[in-house]
Amino acid sequence: MIDLHYAPTPNGWKISIMLEELGLPYKVIPINIRGGEQFKPEFLAISPNNRIPAIVDWLPADAGRPFPVFETGAILIYLAEKTGRFLPADLRGRSVVMQWLMWQMAGLGPMLGQHGHFALYAAEKIPYAIERYRDEAARLYRVLDTQLGKTGAYVAGDYSIADIACFPWTMTHKAQGFTLDDYPNVKRWYADVRARPQVQAGLAIGKFVKEPFDEEARKNMFGARAKEMAIKQ
Amino acid sequence: MIDLHYAPTPNGWKISIMLEELGLPYKVIPINIRGGEQFKPEFLAISPNNRIPAIVDWLPADAGRPFPVFETGAILIYLAEKTGRFLPADLRGRSVVMQWLMWQMAGLGPMLGQHGHFALYAAEKIPYAIERYRDEAARLYRVLDTQLGKTGAYVAGDYSIADIACFPWTMTHKAQGFTLDDYPNVKRWYADVRARPQVQAGLAIGKFVKEPFDEEARKNMFGARAKEMAIKQ
Repeated sequence: MIDLHYAPTPNGWKISIMLEELGLPYKVIPINIRGGEQFKPEFLAISPNNRIPAIVDWLPADAGRPFPVFETGAILIYLAEKTGRFLPADLRGRSVVMQWLMWQMAGLGPMLGQHGHFALYAAEKIPYAIERYRDEAARLYRVLDTQLGKTGAYVAGDYSIADIACFPWTMTHKAQGFTLDDYPNVKRWYADVRARPQVQAGLAIGKFVKEPFDEEARKNMFGARAKEMAIKQ
Repeated sequence: MIDLHYAPTPNGWKISIMLEELGLPYKVIPINIRGGEQFKPEFLAISPNNRIPAIVDWLPADAGRPFPVFETGAILIYLAEKTGRFLPADLRGRSVVMQWLMWQMAGLGPMLGQHGHFALYAAEKIPYAIERYRDEAARLYRVLDTQLGKTGAYVAGDYSIADIACFPWTMTHKAQGFTLDDYPNVKRWYADVRARPQVQAGLAIGKFVKEPFDEEARKNMFGARAKEMAIKQ
């Protein structure tokens, strides 16, 4: 059994989709990130960066004590290697998946995250920051479109953890003011991935009730609470 | 022989340090990122995200054609697996390194990058953005400090690609207005890593002459050039 410490966000969906794709038994443990549950000591013991998702594998392959894993990229690699799926074994295929997984982790995710913050969530509207991240997001969509045009299939060739990492972030495109009509290869790929029953199952688990997005939620999600905690240490 | 397509930046240093640690023969190919060389078709064929560094391995382990790798996290994993060094083979040790490598790729690197942009490089000084990223950088330094306090040694226990990924970004601390006196475990680790002759050798290769940081350089480095190119496609 795997515990999935979870909230319904693009990063959360990566792992619920992966677990559904693998058909592994798992238990969802909702983490109320608007309410600040990510700062509780029992969660920090699993996820020292105070971010969801994280997993605990109660039956790791070495048959030892339960094993916690944080950071979605590392969770995807861990689960792929545990099962031998969605990460090729050959040198080149494996590295190409790693390259695009890293591109998602270091680029597509963080930069769409910044664009979402400044364009949608920040109380103050700052044109310089909105434009900076809109341009960077558009650049990244272009890079993805070019790559998907080259493979004619999935991000790294066959369907892999690179797709599972990228897809949930591209689900934000409408809210962030992008249209996939500008990126025809992304549009084709997006429809393919979205149609997978496992992907739909992974997205469906996330529909638990959200807390209101009030001042307390902003404090927990936008750094003020983390800052207070560091000062108290 | 490995070609290292390189510029002297924290991301570039990760790979020059790794190659020095491994003692692998390599050739430095300077990429003038202020001059826009990252947008040339021959570079994009190796690094489709138009970012340095990237490598080409002319003698990959499968003895096939030369193999290009982009994204520093993927390059570090590729070189660690090629040589069997700086990435443990056991399930837990390996995953812990992957977790902290991903934390660097998704958090420490991008967020120090954003703080550097708004605090040091952006022509417009925007208090909201500077504070957002200063707070996030401080949070990340605190997370790293706590982890290094737990291991009492390196980021993931023994010296690994997690250290090689984190160290070059912490070299920006003074310029970004942080003091390691606030993070005693980071300070101890920083001195340990910095003292390694291989780290010093990796940093030393980067001292080729830089282009002036003028309007053209800003255009090439801050998205305007990438935006023009996308529009032209």
